[in-house]
Amino acid sequence: MTTVGLISPGAMGASVGAAAAHTGTTVVWASTGRSLSTRERARESGLQDCGTLQNLVATCEIILSVCPPHNAPDVADEVAAFGFSGIYLDANAIAPDVTREIGSTMTRRGARFVDGGIIGGPAWKAESGTQLYLSGKDAWVIADIFEDSNLHTSVISEHIGAASALKMTFAAYTKGSTALLSAILAVAEKEGVRAHLERQWGDEFTRITHQRVTTNTAKAWRFEGEMREIAATFSGAGLPGDFHEAAAQIFADLSKFKDRDETPGIEEVIAALLKPSS
Amino acid sequence: MTTVGLISPGAMGASVGAAAAHTGTTVVWASTGRSLSTRERARESGLQDCGTLQNLVATCEIILSVCPPHNAPDVADEVAAFGFSGIYLDANAIAPDVTREIGSTMTRRGARFVDGGIIGGPAWKAESGTQLYLSGKDAWVIADIFEDSNLHTSVISEHIGAASALKMTFAAYTKGSTALLSAILAVAEKEGVRAHLERQWGDEFTRITHQRVTTNTAKAWRFEGEMREIAATFSGAGLPGDFHEAAAQIFADLSKFKDRDETPGIEEVIAALLKPSS
Repeated sequence: MTTVGLISPGAMGASVGAAAAHTGTTVVWASTGRSLSTRERARESGLQDCGTLQNLVATCEIILSVCPPHNAPDVADEVAAFGFSGIYLDANAIAPDVTREIGSTMTRRGARFVDGGIIGGPAWKAESGTQLYLSGKDAWVIADIFEDSNLHTSVISEHIGAASALKMTFAAYTKGSTALLSAILAVAEKEGVRAHLERQWGDEFTRITHQRVTTNTAKAWRFEGEMREIAATFSGAGLPGDFHEAAAQIFADLSKFKDRDETPGIEEVIAALLKPSS
Repeated sequence: MTTVGLISPGAMGASVGAAAAHTGTTVVWASTGRSLSTRERARESGLQDCGTLQNLVATCEIILSVCPPHNAPDVADEVAAFGFSGIYLDANAIAPDVTREIGSTMTRRGARFVDGGIIGGPAWKAESGTQLYLSGKDAWVIADIFEDSNLHTSVISEHIGAASALKMTFAAYTKGSTALLSAILAVAEKEGVRAHLERQWGDEFTRITHQRVTTNTAKAWRFEGEMREIAATFSGAGLPGDFHEAAAQIFADLSKFKDRDETPGIEEVIAALLKPSS
């Protein structure tokens, strides 16, 4: 049996680990330095604790990296530094150029590399419809791990970068347009015309917009980095990166809602955008 | 009877003039230096030709400015230079700060000023639902001109800048998100994942997106300036202007479709964005 290592069991990562563990695969993680809540989440997800990253690298034939975008290159570097020679999946929301760079570094240092991009929320149920897109010559090995699991997989290309590009271009609209709508509401408020704008939008569009804007605040702290990766993706393709540089700034201004128990009201979100320093 | 002057009978302006003329108001325009097609459109719209702008200013108690955004300040300057002392409506897609500057200049030079913002397409039929939003102390005078006409009016505030802000924040999403989707399709094409992105989007969203992106190309040449006004509106309110700086660049790259008889296909639009210099 293949042993799979998971880095790291955050909200998304834990569900990915659980999906693999559920099919009978042994999934391990390294608890050193991690919080109590992460340990609990890992245990509940059926992951086995191997202690350190060095142990994880020594134990596993396959390693899955699921982490915030800005950590992705460092995680890969650490794994490579321990001499990993198995298959490494980077499933993070990073620009295809960044993925290609990580991939060529990993390959040069003796590992095999697969590109991944996750679209959807945590994959706790099959009905969640969470998709793991995969690309690269060894993509099928990763797809095999998740066969008949709650995480749907799709191998889309032999080329490293394809899965990342798909993730980036999909999130470019969902998250980018939410950031845009957040900014629009703040500008309209500042100019004293928000009620008129919302009347012109109509009740349904306004209701959905308020919902999108307010429910996104809890995740805003990790969207800033993702928006910068999308900006880099656009620039890399010769298109303007400014849409998502602006989106990054909006999410940065909303990052203070991270540890809130309740979703804030629209008035409070708008106030945060108009006085981002408070 | 009040005589109303219209500057200028473009696609939107002509329909605004026709709406006023249809209610029995005398609407004049100045043909000097204008093209044959504009003259024909003005005649068909029931506008009377008074020859020069100087005649128009001397004849009219009310002047309506409906022109491309970057021309708005110059048009107002010329009217003021001829000593206009009636009511001047600026109904253009310009940033509220620009409107306020035009307004205070006009007022200082002896005219009364009304702010307007048009949402919707040309107002040839009442069912088009085209809205002229108005703000300022004399806004009701303009609303009176269009009573029971094909152009619906709504006085939203006493403050100059409110109607412009409403126009800007509304167009910020409609046109801004179309520019964003255009860019996304080009990035996905460049990275070789467009078919996968469109599968993830689903048939309906993809169809509507292609339609929005392709039908906007004919108007792209005049959206660039409007996007820069929206960027200025955002910056003026302390929010990032970069969304619409990017949108301006996209529409600039698509401006070559201006004089096309037929709507281009999606492939051609994407190619234009990937090779904007061609």
